[in-house]
Amino acid sequence: MTDTLYSNIGYDAHTIGFGEKPGIAVVDFQIGFTDPNGPFSSALVERAICNTARVLESARKANVPVANCYTAYHSLKDMPYWKIGPVRDDFYYGHECTQMEPRTSDKNYDFIFCKSAPSIFFNTPATTLFTKNGCDTVIVMGCMTSGCIRASVIDSFSNGYKTIVPEDCVGDADERPHNDNLRDIGRRYADIVKSDDVINYLEEYRKLNK
Amino acid sequence: MTDTLYSNIGYDAHTIGFGEKPGIAVVDFQIGFTDPNGPFSSALVERAICNTARVLESARKANVPVANCYTAYHSLKDMPYWKIGPVRDDFYYGHECTQMEPRTSDKNYDFIFCKSAPSIFFNTPATTLFTKNGCDTVIVMGCMTSGCIRASVIDSFSNGYKTIVPEDCVGDADERPHNDNLRDIGRRYADIVKSDDVINYLEEYRKLNK
Amino acid sequence: MTDTLYSNIGYDAHTIGFGEKPGIAVVDFQIGFTDPNGPFSSALVERAICNTARVLESARKANVPVANCYTAYHSLKDMPYWKIGPVRDDFYYGHECTQMEPRTSDKNYDFIFCKSAPSIFFNTPATTLFTKNGCDTVIVMGCMTSGCIRASVIDSFSNGYKTIVPEDCVGDADERPHNDNLRDIGRRYADIVKSDDVINYLEEYRKLNK
Amino acid sequence: MTDTLYSNIGYDAHTIGFGEKPGIAVVDFQIGFTDPNGPFSSALVERAICNTARVLESARKANVPVANCYTAYHSLKDMPYWKIGPVRDDFYYGHECTQMEPRTSDKNYDFIFCKSAPSIFFNTPATTLFTKNGCDTVIVMGCMTSGCIRASVIDSFSNGYKTIVPEDCVGDADERPHNDNLRDIGRRYADIVKSDDVINYLEEYRKLNK
Repeated sequence: MTDTLYSNIGYDAHTIGFGEKPGIAVVDFQIGFTDPNGPFSSALVERAICNTARVLESARKANVPVANCYTAYHSLKDMPYWKIGPVRDDFYYGHECTQMEPRTSDKNYDFIFCKSAPSIFFNTPATTLFTKNGCDTVIVMGCMTSGCIRASVIDSFSNGYKTIVPEDCVGDADERPHNDNLRDIGRRYADIVKSDDVINYLEEYRKLNK
Repeated sequence: MTDTLYSNIGYDAHTIGFGEKPGIAVVDFQIGFTDPNGPFSSALVERAICNTARVLESARKANVPVANCYTAYHSLKDMPYWKIGPVRDDFYYGHECTQMEPRTSDKNYDFIFCKSAPSIFFNTPATTLFTKNGCDTVIVMGCMTSGCIRASVIDSFSNGYKTIVPEDCVGDADERPHNDNLRDIGRRYADIVKSDDVINYLEEYRKLNK
Repeated sequence: MTDTLYSNIGYDAHTIGFGEKPGIAVVDFQIGFTDPNGPFSSALVERAICNTARVLESARKANVPVANCYTAYHSLKDMPYWKIGPVRDDFYYGHECTQMEPRTSDKNYDFIFCKSAPSIFFNTPATTLFTKNGCDTVIVMGCMTSGCIRASVIDSFSNGYKTIVPEDCVGDADERPHNDNLRDIGRRYADIVKSDDVINYLEEYRKLNK
Repeated sequence: MTDTLYSNIGYDAHTIGFGEKPGIAVVDFQIGFTDPNGPFSSALVERAICNTARVLESARKANVPVANCYTAYHSLKDMPYWKIGPVRDDFYYGHECTQMEPRTSDKNYDFIFCKSAPSIFFNTPATTLFTKNGCDTVIVMGCMTSGCIRASVIDSFSNGYKTIVPEDCVGDADERPHNDNLRDIGRRYADIVKSDDVINYLEEYRKLNK
């Protein structure tokens, strides 16, 4: 019913589509969120890690630029007013929780950098990477759907990129906020697709750009 | 149940509180969204306009800086890939829908400016206003909760402000996305309060700064 | 001698060259700076206006996106701490000095917007325009070489664009700061060329993209 | 003569002054620029290191936030189009030239971060640090005056801070570009002072905020 209400007034009236030059944004796949024994682990996050790893394999084979970030701070002095206890307590430079998840990062290939806010774009060099490589499309993956993914998608859109979210490459602690945010995003800013759609597109792209 | 799950793993573990120097951010209260006969009008949006007007009266009396923005474009060339039909079709410079809502804007007092993305902070001079006036707190009001309010709150938080959202000063087409987004925001980035809480705070602030 | 010193330690070791997709940035050609009877007028500024008009004619014919900005404020509250008297006194919304120079602006074609800082990129939608149009190259023109041009060139470079400055399309009150800044810029961030070089490139580009 | 021309038309018409809450920005004091045996060393740079160390001692004693940055890249893919050979060749993560100068950095106190462009503010978390700590004043030190200092001063000004440059705390390969840029900056954006002026101010600030 809600869905009808929004589509009746013009939401989700267009599809964006894949562009000619993709870039990849992987958000917060760091031990603090990905450790299967950690507090933030969940079935959705585990699924997202596995599918993101598959997409990244295709992306790297196609020579597509990969921005891969983690969140960390030096002290409370440079940290925004987080209401999440573990972020305030643990997300400091050098703490284990700020190390990159090995399944979804390749320090030789990826551009790995620290971010200080929910969005992978907020005060980071991500756009310089994408501009330098002529990207018109950004594929956003990582966690959490209702936190840093939502923020990163808004900024990817705001920067003028065609923004694509493979829904099985983003995860959250629980299904409801995960789905609520995909709903909000899909109405306004981005196309919601499957990991296999992205892999097919990257394979096409690779063939065209050999 | 979802709420327990998130609080159990540390979300919403802190309260932010009001700071010493407030600034106001009013988002997208422009005719295209506020016209009672327009497609985006709703009971929640009408309520938000009335309460925002009350808060603004207190803010101006207390000499608090007000950033008040609207969304508009020159052409499709400078517009992000909006999936919302009416934004793509109508939100151009000079179109009636880009004019400010008279109940919530005062062109002699407010700093009124155009924005080009969901967030009132994205590529706008809002932070220069707040920095120049020494603000440590930003009160976010306007519409839509599940769109530009969500985006503006993330950026206010990211910039390092204590971020406050009076829930009866933000609106949406429907209750569910409105509430979903207040839930996500309140867990991470901002305190969710009532307009009367803000008015009381501004009155206190005014007395202290006479 | 200075020039040898800098080139000996590696400055100006590379040429950037024109890219595949240009965008244009015109900075502060507004009446406050361009009025031949105004305080900021000079032979260099007049020359820059005439040559910029010629480049813009080619750019528009080739369907190249044009970002064209002016500087203006609502009040001292939102203005940075300018040390330039006339900017502090006069550069307010609606003042004649904030109107666009007619020789170098076309409101039907150009994306004209207000900026609040020296750089055409600082907190403005310029990058969204260039990203949406796939630009890899930005040609910077306008005034003053030792002020807003210097700032805009730094940001164009920082954003990852191939940055080109046609020296006869930028001007200043006096030759010395004009030349000093072209020297600093040309060593680090941008190629310094002539307006005719840009016009030839735009003509080539037009033919290739018909 | 040039100076008269600019002051006659209103440049350098105001003094900014120190504000109530200072922050410190130290730019590019990294081994690649500070090594006395390296290509970028000079008498001016050595002098700047020594004086910056003195100012930092006062700043840390007064509990003033210190942003301290270095420039580094992952690969050419994320690097802007630098025309400076050594930056293109050597300034990569892990290279010795990207390590902090020990005389001007304290990893326990300072907020040390990587930047990717000339300005310490460009796509970095510097403003979040200063906003969170309520700073209205930024003191800029480091190197090179005609490169990253110029860029950082423009952005400090643009963000709305009172910007102070102690001239004996910034350096360059040669005196002429050093002086040219102090001249341009001092006319528009910042007060040019001495290290002792800053130390006296920080000592006053410390006493008031004990």
